[in-house]
Amino acid sequence: MRLRFTPVDTTFYDLFAQSAGNLVDGSRLLAEMLVDGSDRAAIARQMKDAEHRGDEATHAIVRRVNSTFVTPFDREDIYRLASSLDDVMDAMEAAVDYVLLYELDGLPEGIEDMVDVLQRQADLTAETMPRLRAMRDLEDYWIEINRLENVGDQLYRKMLAKLFNGSYDALQVMKLRDVVEQLEDAIDAFEHVANIVEQIVVKES
Amino acid sequence: MRLRFTPVDTTFYDLFAQSAGNLVDGSRLLAEMLVDGSDRAAIARQMKDAEHRGDEATHAIVRRVNSTFVTPFDREDIYRLASSLDDVMDAMEAAVDYVLLYELDGLPEGIEDMVDVLQRQADLTAETMPRLRAMRDLEDYWIEINRLENVGDQLYRKMLAKLFNGSYDALQVMKLRDVVEQLEDAIDAFEHVANIVEQIVVKES
Amino acid sequence: MRLRFTPVDTTFYDLFAQSAGNLVDGSRLLAEMLVDGSDRAAIARQMKDAEHRGDEATHAIVRRVNSTFVTPFDREDIYRLASSLDDVMDAMEAAVDYVLLYELDGLPEGIEDMVDVLQRQADLTAETMPRLRAMRDLEDYWIEINRLENVGDQLYRKMLAKLFNGSYDALQVMKLRDVVEQLEDAIDAFEHVANIVEQIVVKES
Repeated sequence: MRLRFTPVDTTFYDLFAQSAGNLVDGSRLLAEMLVDGSDRAAIARQMKDAEHRGDEATHAIVRRVNSTFVTPFDREDIYRLASSLDDVMDAMEAAVDYVLLYELDGLPEGIEDMVDVLQRQADLTAETMPRLRAMRDLEDYWIEINRLENVGDQLYRKMLAKLFNGSYDALQVMKLRDVVEQLEDAIDAFEHVANIVEQIVVKES
Repeated sequence: MRLRFTPVDTTFYDLFAQSAGNLVDGSRLLAEMLVDGSDRAAIARQMKDAEHRGDEATHAIVRRVNSTFVTPFDREDIYRLASSLDDVMDAMEAAVDYVLLYELDGLPEGIEDMVDVLQRQADLTAETMPRLRAMRDLEDYWIEINRLENVGDQLYRKMLAKLFNGSYDALQVMKLRDVVEQLEDAIDAFEHVANIVEQIVVKES
Repeated sequence: MRLRFTPVDTTFYDLFAQSAGNLVDGSRLLAEMLVDGSDRAAIARQMKDAEHRGDEATHAIVRRVNSTFVTPFDREDIYRLASSLDDVMDAMEAAVDYVLLYELDGLPEGIEDMVDVLQRQADLTAETMPRLRAMRDLEDYWIEINRLENVGDQLYRKMLAKLFNGSYDALQVMKLRDVVEQLEDAIDAFEHVANIVEQIVVKES
């Protein structure tokens, strides 16, 4: 039950929306990378750009939170929300990096399902950020993100079982696992974002 | 030196005790899994149940901390304690999952010693949670947990040396390492719980 | 805009300087370990000593922050700064441990470049900690640490590409990767320290 002075600085919502928008771009780039014959070097460059834009949004949030007297919700929560959005992008970018670094051509079937989960999480998160301001009707968002994380977790385990089923040599398993693990990390990071939003809403209500 | 209003909500202690009780169940299930001929699928289901109970306890703590005006100690510390207990369970469950996922039959000798450390940490933590209320005589607890973590660390290194001594092929090493690493993570997570308890006590004293 | 009572306890700066000093020792020990014919067991013992000194500094900081009424900056930030310095040491020590544990003799060329980055980050961090007190002219510090982290990241990727280029068998790749990953973690942890310092400065300004 914190005292609430007006005006509350609302730029935060725009910055969070920006940050989530970059994650939509990132998940789309991951999907493009899986298309045969895609220009992976170009995709990696675009991913790097998306990551830079994300870093800028995060820095803008941090500076603003430190220079604003009245924030729309707790400073600590604003930090945590910003950095958890950041974590998603870092994992997405690392996945693309590993594909290029290891010059992985044919990626095993099933990866596209994980990327599909990521795209749905990204879209939902981007739709939700502007609605943080109203602080209402957000429960469906975090329930669905958590459901998608469970789906992603099952897909991840299936991928691991596939990698270890003997059809890949050990070095190949290690390389592919690096990619798959980053996708799993990104899916988990989206759930972390949703958990933070849930906590913020519970506090405010 | 925070002002202290009465009554302080004491349900937190019960919830922490519940959460730690689930870790006792989890460590017991890990020990059962190592017994030859154990029904691993059944054990994995029971572990999943224990994890769900743990998640519920954590959620109950989070909701209560957000809806309670006077908490027995700092909100942030309550969050951190709850989520660090959660981390232990996640690592325990992941260990069991990997054993099933990889259909690992004979686990290398030495793993049972790591699980034994986990059981002792779990029992000690469960005994201690109800005593958080008195905030007294907790030093022996965190000293012993830290000692057990050092023991576990030595066991972990011995396991790694064994996995890499040439008697396992690379894929097998990767699979077994996943299991062993989760046990090590669980042991570390218990130490993290103890560190948080220590900080809380120091603050309150 | 926190109220500022005098006197502010300034012991914190000395303790942070001590902690950073241990990281200079640690990075030097890593460099020695790479010299052919170095006494690695002795180096590991010295690294363990440096880590213990680091733990003591961290504990001193935690106890002081909890027993001091007026801290030079936010309690939470002091905790985070202390534990992020701690993370650097843990990663450095783990790297040395893996080299001994796996009895790795010839380490691949390129590792010395990563250690060089670590030494430069450590020196710069140690010079900077005492200057936290003045809270001025610290921007060059975090810009350079971030630049060094980018250099380290490139070196890490080159090392990974080298490990996976087919000239090492899978078990050897796993062992060497453990070492290289810890070096990368230490380099990242230095960046994390710098990010926390930046946030503290922005808050105070």
